[in-house]
Amino acid sequence: MAVRYEHIKTCKQSGARLGRVHTPHGVIETPAFMPVGTLATVKTMSPEELKAMDAHIILSNTYHLFLRPGHEIIRQAGGLHKFMNWDRPILTDSGGFQVFSLSDMRKITEEGVAFRSHLNGDKLFLSPEKAVEIQNALGSDIMMAFDECPPYPATHEYAKQSLERTTRWAERCLKAHENTQNQALFGIVQGGMYEDLRKQSAADLTSLDFPGYAIGGLSVGESKELMYEVLEYTTPVLPANKPRYLMGVGSPDALIEGSIRGVDMFDCVLPTRIARNGTCMTSEGRLVVRNARFAEDFGPLDPKCNCYTCTHYSRAYIRHLIKADETFGLRLTTYHNLHFLLELMRNVRQAIQDDRLLDFRDEFFEMYGMNENGRGF
Amino acid sequence: MAVRYEHIKTCKQSGARLGRVHTPHGVIETPAFMPVGTLATVKTMSPEELKAMDAHIILSNTYHLFLRPGHEIIRQAGGLHKFMNWDRPILTDSGGFQVFSLSDMRKITEEGVAFRSHLNGDKLFLSPEKAVEIQNALGSDIMMAFDECPPYPATHEYAKQSLERTTRWAERCLKAHENTQNQALFGIVQGGMYEDLRKQSAADLTSLDFPGYAIGGLSVGESKELMYEVLEYTTPVLPANKPRYLMGVGSPDALIEGSIRGVDMFDCVLPTRIARNGTCMTSEGRLVVRNARFAEDFGPLDPKCNCYTCTHYSRAYIRHLIKADETFGLRLTTYHNLHFLLELMRNVRQAIQDDRLLDFRDEFFEMYGMNENGRGF
Repeated sequence: MAVRYEHIKTCKQSGARLGRVHTPHGVIETPAFMPVGTLATVKTMSPEELKAMDAHIILSNTYHLFLRPGHEIIRQAGGLHKFMNWDRPILTDSGGFQVFSLSDMRKITEEGVAFRSHLNGDKLFLSPEKAVEIQNALGSDIMMAFDECPPYPATHEYAKQSLERTTRWAERCLKAHENTQNQALFGIVQGGMYEDLRKQSAADLTSLDFPGYAIGGLSVGESKELMYEVLEYTTPVLPANKPRYLMGVGSPDALIEGSIRGVDMFDCVLPTRIARNGTCMTSEGRLVVRNARFAEDFGPLDPKCNCYTCTHYSRAYIRHLIKADETFGLRLTTYHNLHFLLELMRNVRQAIQDDRLLDFRDEFFEMYGMNENGRGF
Repeated sequence: MAVRYEHIKTCKQSGARLGRVHTPHGVIETPAFMPVGTLATVKTMSPEELKAMDAHIILSNTYHLFLRPGHEIIRQAGGLHKFMNWDRPILTDSGGFQVFSLSDMRKITEEGVAFRSHLNGDKLFLSPEKAVEIQNALGSDIMMAFDECPPYPATHEYAKQSLERTTRWAERCLKAHENTQNQALFGIVQGGMYEDLRKQSAADLTSLDFPGYAIGGLSVGESKELMYEVLEYTTPVLPANKPRYLMGVGSPDALIEGSIRGVDMFDCVLPTRIARNGTCMTSEGRLVVRNARFAEDFGPLDPKCNCYTCTHYSRAYIRHLIKADETFGLRLTTYHNLHFLLELMRNVRQAIQDDRLLDFRDEFFEMYGMNENGRGF
């Protein structure tokens, strides 16, 4: 088995899980946040920097790597780890979400999805078998089954048909998977915002006995309350001895609330994307360092942070760099935001250990300023 | 005295000088190449990376920092070293060259130069006193006197008037300089491509007893042969006990030829600028890593290089990053090119030590492929 979930303890106050995911490239302490390295690089960062902030795993995107540079080149390079100089675990998505969100003129059939590249209009085709072939070439530690992510809102009928197709596709993925020894294939629970469908999807996939389960189709436009409600009836029907990954979620509040609801793994482009726009997550909430009021502020981005950025550079310097379109400014904000979320998850794990994750949540929300102006997150 | 030149030896074969420039922030081994950090950052690089490649000194631009973020902000930050987290020596230029090459609608009078910002059209004024005031605020170890850089070609009459004004301005710079204890002000020898004028400029400036001398107005469009000819009659008339800095020159051949002609310090944006375009300096000459032929080339940029980039990443990966506009690709090519020139200077210093710089030059030119297709440099 390529991946094994080790359960350490359950938080007595919140029910959150503390654990470890063992993979061929090392251990992921959970709950974990995974920085996103779409094109075989976490934008602006080096692998050494990701290690310095102690990222245990990164995520990379099958759709993007299929388009550029192409999975055959990465196969020839000896796989994605070697290609990008990252020897810790990698999770790859299936390309399903991107086909639906990025590509043009897509046509879905039982066989798969025909679409046009968002880069050059090339006609391409992804199927369960192709998505697995690509991920086998990439050599990721954790692969995702090819799924259909229904839009929000979707009717009960559409969501049901879609999840049933996703289950049939998941079965085909299992059959196509050629490297079960070193790569774990996760199934993706769909079912929209419908409790009966989420339970049906979870039961169907569980019967196929995947080494782990993702929860897909959330953070697609619904309210956070609704997302938490879906998690509340979905995670209890997933096997306790397998890791659970909530796809595409990475705001600080959702990381805590997801952990409370039994999620082990998260990923999101949020911290890296807003960093490149000069927006930083800090202990005082979001800070837009481009603002003129920071021009002569010689304090750190976040006075409570001990990251490389905050211990070496001032808001005034970072603002100057970002205003002047200097790459190093984006490196500094990206480093800080990723460190912020990884540190948050370290604190979440400690709070589970101490049986006080609900208290930690309240303290964090108070600090982050969510209640003050609603813009904290 | 803020800066002291220590002469170690003269190459018996070439006449090149091996030495050290002692500054308040440390020692520069010479001949030295100085990476350019125009806006208080060497584009894409961190200070730690510059130290890892053993850059002894960097250059920053007075004109650019005057415009953004403004020297008063850097003064408040505690100076440029602290602002940008660089504790080794910094040299700042005077802004003279940029006023003439970048700004709009400039008007030169004896008092100074009125011009419009190339960023927003603001009316600005630089004079010898203002250029020194800015550099005193920046706190650079080595400052440059405010000079006029005549265009190429320039008539003998224009070049003479211009150098005489530059000398008068240099005197005003000396008077305005408020921190002689910690900052050394260098004079800039001008005089176009005229031997009598270069000698006049050198004699006039030498009589003012600067702690070091720059050679300006070269690499402005003239042939390299002509530049070398100017150096041949200029460096011998400069004091042997002071450092000599050839401004704006950084191609590998010119670094070697300049060293042979008695130059101690060089700077140029060439290695960093071409890096951001995907062009690399290698032991086999220039390599355009964007080219399709490197798509499946899993070897390093330069098989003879031991830099971070070449020991961890392939041409295929770097090409992929640059084609996909990923910042990390620019970091990798920038690192390599700067390392290449710093390593070249280490080899130049060793060759001087071994009294064989002319042999080294021939070997390097043969290797770099200059003779083969003329595009080596």
